[in-house]
Amino acid sequence: MPSVELVAVGTEILLGQLVDTNTAFIAARLAEAGIDVHAAHVVGDNRRRIAAAIRAALERAEGVVTTGGLGPTIDDLTKEAVCDALDLDVELYEPALAHMEAQFAALGRPMSANNRKQAELPRGSKPLDNPNGTAPGFIAFAKNGRFVASMPGVPREMKPMLVRQVVPFLRERFGARERIYTRVLHTIGIGESEIDHRIDDLFRGSENPKVAVLAHDFRADVKLMAKASDEAHAERMIGPLQEEIERRLLGYVFGRDEATPASAVLALLRQRGQTLAVAESCTGGLLSAALTGVPGASRSFLGGVVAYDNAVKVSELDVDAETIAAAGAVSEEVARAMARGARDRLGANVGLSTTGVAGPDGGTPQKPVGLVWVAVDDAEPRAWRLELRGDREAIQRRATTAALGILWRRLNDSPR
Amino acid sequence: MPSVELVAVGTEILLGQLVDTNTAFIAARLAEAGIDVHAAHVVGDNRRRIAAAIRAALERAEGVVTTGGLGPTIDDLTKEAVCDALDLDVELYEPALAHMEAQFAALGRPMSANNRKQAELPRGSKPLDNPNGTAPGFIAFAKNGRFVASMPGVPREMKPMLVRQVVPFLRERFGARERIYTRVLHTIGIGESEIDHRIDDLFRGSENPKVAVLAHDFRADVKLMAKASDEAHAERMIGPLQEEIERRLLGYVFGRDEATPASAVLALLRQRGQTLAVAESCTGGLLSAALTGVPGASRSFLGGVVAYDNAVKVSELDVDAETIAAAGAVSEEVARAMARGARDRLGANVGLSTTGVAGPDGGTPQKPVGLVWVAVDDAEPRAWRLELRGDREAIQRRATTAALGILWRRLNDSPR
Repeated sequence: MPSVELVAVGTEILLGQLVDTNTAFIAARLAEAGIDVHAAHVVGDNRRRIAAAIRAALERAEGVVTTGGLGPTIDDLTKEAVCDALDLDVELYEPALAHMEAQFAALGRPMSANNRKQAELPRGSKPLDNPNGTAPGFIAFAKNGRFVASMPGVPREMKPMLVRQVVPFLRERFGARERIYTRVLHTIGIGESEIDHRIDDLFRGSENPKVAVLAHDFRADVKLMAKASDEAHAERMIGPLQEEIERRLLGYVFGRDEATPASAVLALLRQRGQTLAVAESCTGGLLSAALTGVPGASRSFLGGVVAYDNAVKVSELDVDAETIAAAGAVSEEVARAMARGARDRLGANVGLSTTGVAGPDGGTPQKPVGLVWVAVDDAEPRAWRLELRGDREAIQRRATTAALGILWRRLNDSPR
Repeated sequence: MPSVELVAVGTEILLGQLVDTNTAFIAARLAEAGIDVHAAHVVGDNRRRIAAAIRAALERAEGVVTTGGLGPTIDDLTKEAVCDALDLDVELYEPALAHMEAQFAALGRPMSANNRKQAELPRGSKPLDNPNGTAPGFIAFAKNGRFVASMPGVPREMKPMLVRQVVPFLRERFGARERIYTRVLHTIGIGESEIDHRIDDLFRGSENPKVAVLAHDFRADVKLMAKASDEAHAERMIGPLQEEIERRLLGYVFGRDEATPASAVLALLRQRGQTLAVAESCTGGLLSAALTGVPGASRSFLGGVVAYDNAVKVSELDVDAETIAAAGAVSEEVARAMARGARDRLGANVGLSTTGVAGPDGGTPQKPVGLVWVAVDDAEPRAWRLELRGDREAIQRRATTAALGILWRRLNDSPR
C-alpha cells in the first residue's frame, strides 16, 4: 500500500514559537481518506535541509505533502528545495500571475519581483489554486513518477487547498476506495496494562480492525479503527469486536466516543431520575466544573459547595466542628459528613464529596500529600481512601476523575 | 555547532487524533538553553520505522530526543527501537523497579510482567527519573558517543524530566554558554493592539532583547527575551525595558512570569488581610477551581457555592425567589444578590459572582448565549455585563478569566 510523508517547513516551529497544528489536520484528513501517513517531519527555513528531507522521504514514500515556505520573503525556500530534490527548473504559471496582479491592483499596492516569483512553479507541476491568499500551491513530479504536493503554511490557505484539491488528487492517485472509521471505548477503574492483558489476544497482529489502548490520567481508552469502504461495512468489522471487548471489560467501560466520566455520571442519573449535589474541599471546584461542562447538566446536577475553609464545612455543610477537630478535615468521617451535608442541604438524591491534601504544603506522615477521601451519600453511604501522585494540579485533577469514576461505578453496579 | 533532532513516537499523531504539543515545548526549552534543533520527526508505533528514524537523525545530529512509546503496552516500542538503532541490549534498572513496585502497592493493584519490563533500560544508559509516572526515561549512548534521550509522551511526565534532567545534560554536553532569559508581563483589561500602540517604539527593530505581544483569551502577555551568558547580565538588559513597559501599561499588568489572574487576586487579598467567597452559576466551579489551583489559596479563599439550580441560589445564597422570577437567573439583580449571599453566608470580606448563558441551549434574543453578569460585593457593590463569544467551554473559561480580572482591577484600583 503506498503512503505519503508530511514535511512542515518553518524555523519558528523548531524554536517552539509556533505549535504546528497543520500536521494533525492533514494527518486526520488523510487517515479518513484511507491514505497512510508513515512519518511527519519539521525542518527549518534552510534550502539544503528541506531538499534533503524531501529526497529522503521520497525514498520511503510514494509522495510528500509539504506546508510552509511558499511566501514572498527570502526565508521562503520550499519551491526552490522541491526543484533541487526533484531536479526540476521553474516555469511561469500565467493564471497565478494574473490572480496576483488582480489582488495587488485591488489593494492598490505595487507588486514586487519577489511576488512575481510566486507565480513560478516547478516545471510540469499541477497548480493548486489559493483562493485565500497570493501564493499558489503545486504538485510537482519526479522523473520516477513520485510527487511532492506543496501548500502554504497559513492554516486558512492550506485547509481548503488540502480538502478540495490535494485529497481528491491523492484518492485518485492511490485508488483509495476505503477510509478509516473509529470507535473509542472509555474505561475507568482499570489500568492500561490490565486492559491489555484482558484483550490483547483479540487484536494482537491484527491490522484491520486495529485496536489501541491509550492511557489518560486515571483512566484509559480502547480505540477501534476499521478501514472500510463504507460505514455499514466498518460497523460489521468493529461491532463484534467492540461487544467482546465490552464483555471482557464489564463494569469498566463508561461510554463511547465523546463521553466523559462526568457525562456518563449525568446520563445514569438522568436514566434513574435522580439528582446530584457535591461538596468539594481538595478538588476546589473542579468536580462541579467537570459536571457543568456537560451541556444539559442542569437536569441532574443541582450544584455544590466548595468548602475550602473548615468553617465553611461547618456552616454550609453541617459538618460537626467536633468531628473536624477529632478526625481532621482530611478524614473518612468528614468526607462522609460533607457528602451528607451537600445531599441534605441541596435536596439531592445523591451527595458526592472530596477532601484531601493537594499539596505542596499541608502533608504530614499520617496524612501525606496525595491522600484523598471520596464519599458518596445515598441509600448506603460509603467512603473511599485514595493515595494520589503528582503535583497539586495533578492531584486535584486525578481526585476529580477518581470521584466521578467511583460514583459512576456505584450507580452502574447498583440496582435503581 | 552541534545540534539535536526530535523524534515523537505515536501512531495517534500520524492519524491526526492527537496534536503533538511536546515538540513545541521541547524546542522552546532547547532554544532557551542555546541548543540548536535542526529537524523534528513523527513516526508511528512501528519498531523498524522508529529505529530507522533514529539512525537517520544520528547521521545528521549529535543527539536525538524522543518522546512517547515507553508505556507498558505492546504498542510501546521506543526502547526496543533505540536498542536496535544503537545495537544495544537491555539491563534491569533496580531503582525504577522499586519505584514501580511501591507505586503499584500504594494503588493496591497487581504489577504485570509488562510493567516490570518498563524498568529495563538500554545497557549503559543514564536513567531519567519519572516522579510523575511509572516508566523511567533514559539517555542511551551509541558506540561513537552520540546519544538518544528518550522520555515518556505524557506531557506531565515529560516536562519535568526534560527541564530537570535532559536540558542540564545537553547544556553540559554541548558546552552551551549563552541562553535565552525570558520575562513575561501579564496584562488584563487592555487589548493587544492598544499594548502594541503604547510600547512598540521601545523595541521596534531590536533583536536583543526581543519583545513580543501575545494575545490570550481575554488577556495579553508582553514577553521580553534576552540572550545572555548569565542571569545578572540578562537582568541588566531586561530590567530597564520592563520598568518602562510597566509604567506605560500601569493598572493593567497584574503579574510576572508564573502569575495568573487567580494568584494576583489572592496576593492582593492577602496584602489587605481580606477574604473572598464566590457564587457561581455559569462558570460552574471554574472560578473556585482557578483560585484553589494556587498553592496557599486557603489563606484568603474561604470557598463558594456552585448554584447551578435556581432553588440552590435561593436556599444556599439567599437570593430572593421573586427576584429570579422577575429579572431572570441571568440578570444584574441576581448576580448582585449571589455575590452578597456568598459574602454573607461564608463571612468573607468580598463576594464575587457569575451568572450567564453558557449555551449551547438556553439563549433568547434578549439574553443570547454569551451574556454573562459578574458582580462584586464589598463596601461598594457593583456589577458588570459581558458579551462573550465562543462555544460553551470557551464562554465558561472566558467568564472565569473576566471575573478574576474585574476583581483584580477593583482591588488594585481601590484604596484598602
